[in-house]
Amino acid sequence: MKKLINTPDGVVQDELHGFQAAHGDRVRVSFDPAMIVRIDAPVKGKVGIISGGGSGHEPMHGGFVGPGMLDAACPGEVFTSPTPDQMAEATKAVDGGAGVIHVVKNYTGDVMNFDMAAELGKGEGIEVETILTNDDVAVEDSLYTAGRRGVGVTVLVEKICGGAAEDRRSLQQVAELGRRVNANGRSMGMALTPCITPASGNPSFELADDEVEIGIGIHGEPGRFREKVGPASQVAERLMTPILEDLPFSSGDRVLAFVNGMGGTPLIELYVVYAEVAKIAQQHGLRIERNLIGSYITSLEMQGCSITLLKLDEEMTRYWDAPVNTPGLRWKA
Amino acid sequence: MKKLINTPDGVVQDELHGFQAAHGDRVRVSFDPAMIVRIDAPVKGKVGIISGGGSGHEPMHGGFVGPGMLDAACPGEVFTSPTPDQMAEATKAVDGGAGVIHVVKNYTGDVMNFDMAAELGKGEGIEVETILTNDDVAVEDSLYTAGRRGVGVTVLVEKICGGAAEDRRSLQQVAELGRRVNANGRSMGMALTPCITPASGNPSFELADDEVEIGIGIHGEPGRFREKVGPASQVAERLMTPILEDLPFSSGDRVLAFVNGMGGTPLIELYVVYAEVAKIAQQHGLRIERNLIGSYITSLEMQGCSITLLKLDEEMTRYWDAPVNTPGLRWKA
Repeated sequence: MKKLINTPDGVVQDELHGFQAAHGDRVRVSFDPAMIVRIDAPVKGKVGIISGGGSGHEPMHGGFVGPGMLDAACPGEVFTSPTPDQMAEATKAVDGGAGVIHVVKNYTGDVMNFDMAAELGKGEGIEVETILTNDDVAVEDSLYTAGRRGVGVTVLVEKICGGAAEDRRSLQQVAELGRRVNANGRSMGMALTPCITPASGNPSFELADDEVEIGIGIHGEPGRFREKVGPASQVAERLMTPILEDLPFSSGDRVLAFVNGMGGTPLIELYVVYAEVAKIAQQHGLRIERNLIGSYITSLEMQGCSITLLKLDEEMTRYWDAPVNTPGLRWKA
Repeated sequence: MKKLINTPDGVVQDELHGFQAAHGDRVRVSFDPAMIVRIDAPVKGKVGIISGGGSGHEPMHGGFVGPGMLDAACPGEVFTSPTPDQMAEATKAVDGGAGVIHVVKNYTGDVMNFDMAAELGKGEGIEVETILTNDDVAVEDSLYTAGRRGVGVTVLVEKICGGAAEDRRSLQQVAELGRRVNANGRSMGMALTPCITPASGNPSFELADDEVEIGIGIHGEPGRFREKVGPASQVAERLMTPILEDLPFSSGDRVLAFVNGMGGTPLIELYVVYAEVAKIAQQHGLRIERNLIGSYITSLEMQGCSITLLKLDEEMTRYWDAPVNTPGLRWKA
């Protein structure tokens, strides 16, 4: 195992030290429990939004803390759910009196722990709503999941709900919007290579030198099938077809297309894939009105990509375009 | 070789198609000769800034085209210099009457071709100034270079000069500022793994399973030495010591610290490295006033990182902070 780390056990703490050193002007980093919190939290009268999950998916979620997106993120150890007390602390830290949203990717550990944290929050008189993401069309149940896994759409939920919360929409409105984003988003991923967790030191799975895994999960969980590596056009077709059929997307739909790198894939390849995605979208009469291309929800150094399509409505588009100022996503309308 | 591409020969054209599909609202992409040009170029009365070089280093340079940074970029084939006619076309395309800057990384092919393009531009009555970057302290001459290689500081030159040009500084002022950035910036990189160019299909060099190469170039050119992989603290020390000694940086200096990923390195590892960089900087009395962490000047899927330190002055800081709106870097003051 070759990695830029000090010790397998210390990687999350070390990363948080780096995050604090780099972004301490805009976030508060705490280590016990581990949290990244917007520096001006809680924002009075604004719905607070938190998320969290195992580390190893950076910039998600810590890199999305800031105005226009998350109020706090709770990083677990690599590929390990954070604990209920982390989430409960974060809930308290961002409660500005308008309630708090938990954005939860559908993995058994995350769901269970966020449920407990929501109960703890409610016990302190904080209104909590949960948005569960489960956009991965690859498999129904998987290694760590009952039902579909939550993947790329999570980034879009966090951005769009962040915009709505900044606009002082109510807890129910932000929650409803986030659930609509999840309901209208579909994703699927693939891997050229496995990743190695620092703790295990071994590849998460074995893949032959000429094979790819279609439908991979973000922790290296098995996908749908393996096949010989083909051209990018074939990879895009393998991912786009199930996505398009599942919602289903229809001619005339306006969509956001998100081509995501798994962590070890260079940007040049993501643009090659995006060219194919744009071609397929056009063949199906979809209008790509917004796009995002880059590594935003990753699996350590895994090589591969995922595609997410979101059927946009006017409100989603408006809050997608709204200003955001985080280490990982940053723009002004 | 496993890559998300269609054919080894078509990768740059395919990438440009993806770039056009994604960013056609803000750039014009042409294919013969290959160029990415700001959609509103030439901007009347503004110094035009172009750069270029081999592909495989994305987002550099095409991802830096837009207000506040480059007016155009000329991508060559992977790790291959663009041609003089590409550069000459780009020079004409961005000439708003105030002259054009060529930002050139110090590689023999790039230097020669940009020289010819500058002559061609002057032949058409366009004032051209060249900023040559040569910030890599690792080696004096190398495989493709007489003198030091131009690496990470190039991103900083492009951003800072872009800000100055947007502020309608003169050709001489922008050129002088860019040269000052180069003169005050130092970089060094390392690799955990080689990269594979699509054309060759083979690793650019061999590295044992427990070895790293210190001082690597962005095309996989040999560095200073190889050693057993150590902790991130050791890697940071190996890169920071030559950088600090070379300028030299002194206690009290205000610096921009840039931790760059080589393309296949996940963000979590870059933050671990940044924590070490911040520690070493503090031990030397440096004040890190700005930072940049991410994969901005890459070597295909190579795993590894580079560190760039820039000694800031007031003018550099101001133009670093100035608004920028490109696919690769985007913020508003």
